[in-house]
Amino acid sequence: MTRKVCVVVTARPSYSRIRSALVAIEAHPDLELQLVVAASALLDRYGQVVTQIEHDGFAIAERVYTIIEGENPTSMAKTAGLGVLELATTFDNLRPDVVVTIADRYETMSTAIAASYMNIPLAHVQGGEVSGSIDEKVRHAITKLSDLHLVATPGAAERVIRMGEYPSSVHITGCPSVDLAAEVAAAMTEPFDPSLEYGGVGADINPARPYLVVMQHPVTTEHEVAKDQVDATLGAVHDTGIPAMWFWPNVDAGSDGTSRGIRAYREHHEDAPIRFFKNLAPTDFLRLLVGSAAIVGNSSVAIRECAYLGVPAVNIGSRQAGRERAVNVVDVDHDRDAISKAILDRVQGGRCAPDPLYGDGASGPRIADLLATAELTIEKRLAY
Amino acid sequence: MTRKVCVVVTARPSYSRIRSALVAIEAHPDLELQLVVAASALLDRYGQVVTQIEHDGFAIAERVYTIIEGENPTSMAKTAGLGVLELATTFDNLRPDVVVTIADRYETMSTAIAASYMNIPLAHVQGGEVSGSIDEKVRHAITKLSDLHLVATPGAAERVIRMGEYPSSVHITGCPSVDLAAEVAAAMTEPFDPSLEYGGVGADINPARPYLVVMQHPVTTEHEVAKDQVDATLGAVHDTGIPAMWFWPNVDAGSDGTSRGIRAYREHHEDAPIRFFKNLAPTDFLRLLVGSAAIVGNSSVAIRECAYLGVPAVNIGSRQAGRERAVNVVDVDHDRDAISKAILDRVQGGRCAPDPLYGDGASGPRIADLLATAELTIEKRLAY
Amino acid sequence: MTRKVCVVVTARPSYSRIRSALVAIEAHPDLELQLVVAASALLDRYGQVVTQIEHDGFAIAERVYTIIEGENPTSMAKTAGLGVLELATTFDNLRPDVVVTIADRYETMSTAIAASYMNIPLAHVQGGEVSGSIDEKVRHAITKLSDLHLVATPGAAERVIRMGEYPSSVHITGCPSVDLAAEVAAAMTEPFDPSLEYGGVGADINPARPYLVVMQHPVTTEHEVAKDQVDATLGAVHDTGIPAMWFWPNVDAGSDGTSRGIRAYREHHEDAPIRFFKNLAPTDFLRLLVGSAAIVGNSSVAIRECAYLGVPAVNIGSRQAGRERAVNVVDVDHDRDAISKAILDRVQGGRCAPDPLYGDGASGPRIADLLATAELTIEKRLAY
Amino acid sequence: MTRKVCVVVTARPSYSRIRSALVAIEAHPDLELQLVVAASALLDRYGQVVTQIEHDGFAIAERVYTIIEGENPTSMAKTAGLGVLELATTFDNLRPDVVVTIADRYETMSTAIAASYMNIPLAHVQGGEVSGSIDEKVRHAITKLSDLHLVATPGAAERVIRMGEYPSSVHITGCPSVDLAAEVAAAMTEPFDPSLEYGGVGADINPARPYLVVMQHPVTTEHEVAKDQVDATLGAVHDTGIPAMWFWPNVDAGSDGTSRGIRAYREHHEDAPIRFFKNLAPTDFLRLLVGSAAIVGNSSVAIRECAYLGVPAVNIGSRQAGRERAVNVVDVDHDRDAISKAILDRVQGGRCAPDPLYGDGASGPRIADLLATAELTIEKRLAY
Repeated sequence: MTRKVCVVVTARPSYSRIRSALVAIEAHPDLELQLVVAASALLDRYGQVVTQIEHDGFAIAERVYTIIEGENPTSMAKTAGLGVLELATTFDNLRPDVVVTIADRYETMSTAIAASYMNIPLAHVQGGEVSGSIDEKVRHAITKLSDLHLVATPGAAERVIRMGEYPSSVHITGCPSVDLAAEVAAAMTEPFDPSLEYGGVGADINPARPYLVVMQHPVTTEHEVAKDQVDATLGAVHDTGIPAMWFWPNVDAGSDGTSRGIRAYREHHEDAPIRFFKNLAPTDFLRLLVGSAAIVGNSSVAIRECAYLGVPAVNIGSRQAGRERAVNVVDVDHDRDAISKAILDRVQGGRCAPDPLYGDGASGPRIADLLATAELTIEKRLAY
Repeated sequence: MTRKVCVVVTARPSYSRIRSALVAIEAHPDLELQLVVAASALLDRYGQVVTQIEHDGFAIAERVYTIIEGENPTSMAKTAGLGVLELATTFDNLRPDVVVTIADRYETMSTAIAASYMNIPLAHVQGGEVSGSIDEKVRHAITKLSDLHLVATPGAAERVIRMGEYPSSVHITGCPSVDLAAEVAAAMTEPFDPSLEYGGVGADINPARPYLVVMQHPVTTEHEVAKDQVDATLGAVHDTGIPAMWFWPNVDAGSDGTSRGIRAYREHHEDAPIRFFKNLAPTDFLRLLVGSAAIVGNSSVAIRECAYLGVPAVNIGSRQAGRERAVNVVDVDHDRDAISKAILDRVQGGRCAPDPLYGDGASGPRIADLLATAELTIEKRLAY
Repeated sequence: MTRKVCVVVTARPSYSRIRSALVAIEAHPDLELQLVVAASALLDRYGQVVTQIEHDGFAIAERVYTIIEGENPTSMAKTAGLGVLELATTFDNLRPDVVVTIADRYETMSTAIAASYMNIPLAHVQGGEVSGSIDEKVRHAITKLSDLHLVATPGAAERVIRMGEYPSSVHITGCPSVDLAAEVAAAMTEPFDPSLEYGGVGADINPARPYLVVMQHPVTTEHEVAKDQVDATLGAVHDTGIPAMWFWPNVDAGSDGTSRGIRAYREHHEDAPIRFFKNLAPTDFLRLLVGSAAIVGNSSVAIRECAYLGVPAVNIGSRQAGRERAVNVVDVDHDRDAISKAILDRVQGGRCAPDPLYGDGASGPRIADLLATAELTIEKRLAY
Repeated sequence: MTRKVCVVVTARPSYSRIRSALVAIEAHPDLELQLVVAASALLDRYGQVVTQIEHDGFAIAERVYTIIEGENPTSMAKTAGLGVLELATTFDNLRPDVVVTIADRYETMSTAIAASYMNIPLAHVQGGEVSGSIDEKVRHAITKLSDLHLVATPGAAERVIRMGEYPSSVHITGCPSVDLAAEVAAAMTEPFDPSLEYGGVGADINPARPYLVVMQHPVTTEHEVAKDQVDATLGAVHDTGIPAMWFWPNVDAGSDGTSRGIRAYREHHEDAPIRFFKNLAPTDFLRLLVGSAAIVGNSSVAIRECAYLGVPAVNIGSRQAGRERAVNVVDVDHDRDAISKAILDRVQGGRCAPDPLYGDGASGPRIADLLATAELTIEKRLAY
């Protein structure tokens, strides 16, 4: 019998991370995909991921607006609550056999609560990882609500089991985001210039010459210092003199601070060799990465996809603390000088060896198979 | 400096479980109590706990209506979501230093999410216990969102730590519900007759003669069989011929099934020696227990308070599976004959020896002291 | 081109009132029916209208749980808000060409706000009538949000136009509830005994002998006196000695008071010739009315359907104040003696002449035709 | 006895419109002000009115986040629903004797529904006016929910009464926004330069030379053409060559379109003599108006405050259609040439004669007196 698999996509990064699995679910003879698009994935301000999803050919079962404005912890909590309220109606109407939630953004908890309270088996992609702050709490709480754990790495599997989950419910699938990276890297033949399609504002950057990719998100529990932190990175990149492609932050507590920092820099450095982008299609972003000299900031892309791609990464601050790292990553604090020194070192070192730590490029089909064949149950206890 | 402690009470049992801690918090020179009453604790149908709270002399900071009708898994999920939405506004206005959530009812997750997303340190009372089904998931997910763990038993402490919490954040306090039981038992001098104050419907029961207390809740993930299950218990109690004081179930998925079973029984057995009650004040319920020959059903009271009180308990079905038990408890399945036999055995065996497994009667002050002195932080990671 | 017509049914009475129009919409070649069932229409406690709807063969597009428990003015307001929140998502997914809202219950405002804020043309059935209290405010506020007015009577049409609506947008259709009454009356051949199918509790009533039908709802703005009011009616019916079929009230502020009154009466008058029913299918209720000696209480059925049926009606209190009346209605206050005297007078007077004031039995097709052909616009101003 | 007056401020313009009444309520011996700040009044993106409110010395009783992101009709409807849900809790906790709602923005309906459903008398400031589209529907629907009508003009009073409100409940108070304008105009001694305090981006404008003030909001029901409409105005102002102070639009369906238009213009006309501002304190905005040669766009300020101030106004498009006008206003369509011609004519004509049509500068105290002395009731019917 065909299983109805409801996947809830709430943001740009969760779409990138799940896309190859969506393709595999849709292609699987025993699965029916019910794709729900919610939260910031629907919003202009965050690059309207929904347009990309439609462009990629997926049918959207429901659209659910849940982001309550404020960009502060109160509005984040309210957004999570509204998400539960809305997704419960969605699931009641779609009647899925299994719900899939992705990673650890604050809105993913809404999916987890709605599904588990409604006695719908819940599959969690990318549990068991270690980072920091609220993401960490959310990720592990979702693990405790989930019935099927589709984790990226052996370390993640071990942690999920140590938290008391049944080993039989934990599967190392690798991360589907790496599938996309593998595909893109294999297909690339020449440098990718994002300004042609996406515009962006700031300097013209030649993608055939060495350039940095910078992506720095505010850290939720430190949202007041978000501006200081982005200021350090801006200063450091400025100091290296290496051209950079820079991305605006996700919606999150603190993103106003980060955005203010970027705007202030732009007003005082109109001629800096930096170009600012709102958002790229996931594949285009990967093209940009494949061609880059290094990635700078605190995005998980640097840790995950870049492990496979061998792109050198300068990871700043606490946001990715505790995640398993391949050799491509060096860590620094929010210190202008330390950051600029690390960037120069990494760029000089050149491309790293590929590492399958977060995936080998075949995670999507593996996830689809597990969704089609794993026993689906909602009964569980602590395994100890 | 005084710490503002916000305690959210959402149901009758959570009030009973936290009452002695509320008294101690209010009396503590370094604490200020902010008591929020929400969900079924505000509703007539569930005995209007709020009236009892006011009668006990507590000032109520806010009242929050969150129960969405339906008594099915969808409406439970929506209730949880609405709770987050509302409590976020409440916390934003009250600005507590620490939020306290109790046990594992589905609405307690709302408190946990609102507080943790708002970067307010979260203390969880009664984590780490093992029972079954959705309660189990909720309880451990709350553990992963909590910063301070005030657990009842050594076994609970061990499990919380094994789930990856910092040992320094885990404190064995015993359960404050036992404080109340201890107080009531010490003060009792004669049999308590609930019909005088609470009425109830059905037979007249003489509290000076042996009687049973029966309390059976539907099990969330089995809500369709709730009626069959209560039918077995009704038949078994009927067969023993021992008079019984019987309680209507809590609001929960399946409570309609349980209520239907009780109503059907009543229509066909008008002369049965059973009296049905909607709800008693916690102290009166404990008086009733202290005087009883045995407690029957699946209430946690049988496991916890009755361990200290030495009241024999017949625990039916899976609802309390995995909880640590003292010698007073015997477990049976939802089988009419097995239940009636267990009741007769237990009643013949007489009162058991008191056991401090779930508390020694001084948990409330211990919890207040920890809320006043423990380091309050929202930063945590897996301890492994 | 086919128009998608979304009808939102939120309660038992609104289903009865719109049923013949639903049949006509479904049968209309230019219309596609999108039926949304929400609020108390989904709940067991209020007779689960949804089951009747399915039994009548309608496909349900979405189910939306919106009732927040409390049965007080605060929870009613919150229910209205939750309804807007949910129905906006529903309309966003269904994309109707026109939304139909019915009458004036507090939840109908949710439909009106969601549709009008979303720029979807809104048709209002049964606007322009005059009754009292919050219903009155809600009804006229919905008129000001509506684009197409499908009113029951000439008086209603005049009032809607006086409130500033374009005369061209106001159509006298009669009330579709009368269609059903006409159909049922035409088909009846023998007395209808509701106890066979519906059970009910209380005395056995012979439907071949004269009996009363009693239906009394709490009045929203007087919810504290709901119990006193039902007590007067209970006493009056008791005094007449005429057997009665009595109905439990709708969910509404005050319904707990009404229910308490009924329960208290039952406990003290076990032998009274009254049988209590939770709810009947609309057609069965009409059968019961057609065979009755009189209807007593404050239901609008007495004013509307009974005008056409010629059933004598004793209307109590302010709930129907201001509605146009045919000769079948006599009004009395909440006074036990006045009520019993009015009942006896009416019953002696016998059946009244039919009056088409609220409809001639063909409203449903008239409404469907208007929904198919009327200009649909959302642009309007005060007509003066 | 002191009456508790709860005023809900949801946006920048509603604060300006009510400020002098807030001062008078706070100063009134028989009134206690409960000020609730909600919706866009809390958000950075819309100039954080809440900061201004605090700076003006008002104590804020509660802050309520209700804006759901999307800036489309669906998210606007959901925002209205969330507002009702939240404000019901707020009113339940504050227990006001009367609630005041202002004008006709979509969120003001939330205040009206929550208060009227909770049986709290509702006072509406600025009802009875005629404009267009959804604002018009909302305004008149609020009138039907309101118990006390505090209108600005004789025409508004007449319309409210014609809609069926009791004449005794309708009071012509003038508009409190004019109070502020009167105060500011009386105190001004020299040209006001907003760039000193507010920065803004674009050209340097000399406030001692003739300049325009431009404020153009998207029209809700035409949100797709918002960009075209702002383009016409940008072109027209460009053509006149007169320097301009230009304001970003309010949050509303379509504001993204308006903002896109402005950003595109700026990129292509870096040297245009226009300076763009996000928001000014109400008093500073009035200072800017008092010193201006004319106001251009579709803001109600042009119709109301500028009538009293005698500032010439070019009103564009349908947004203010139907409002009573003093001699200062000329109307034009969204046509670049027509707009530029009208601007040049108006500027040449110079300052107009003051007109008290919308107020004489003493509305605030008049409103406070009425709130203190008017009979407060929730009972009403159509007056005909």
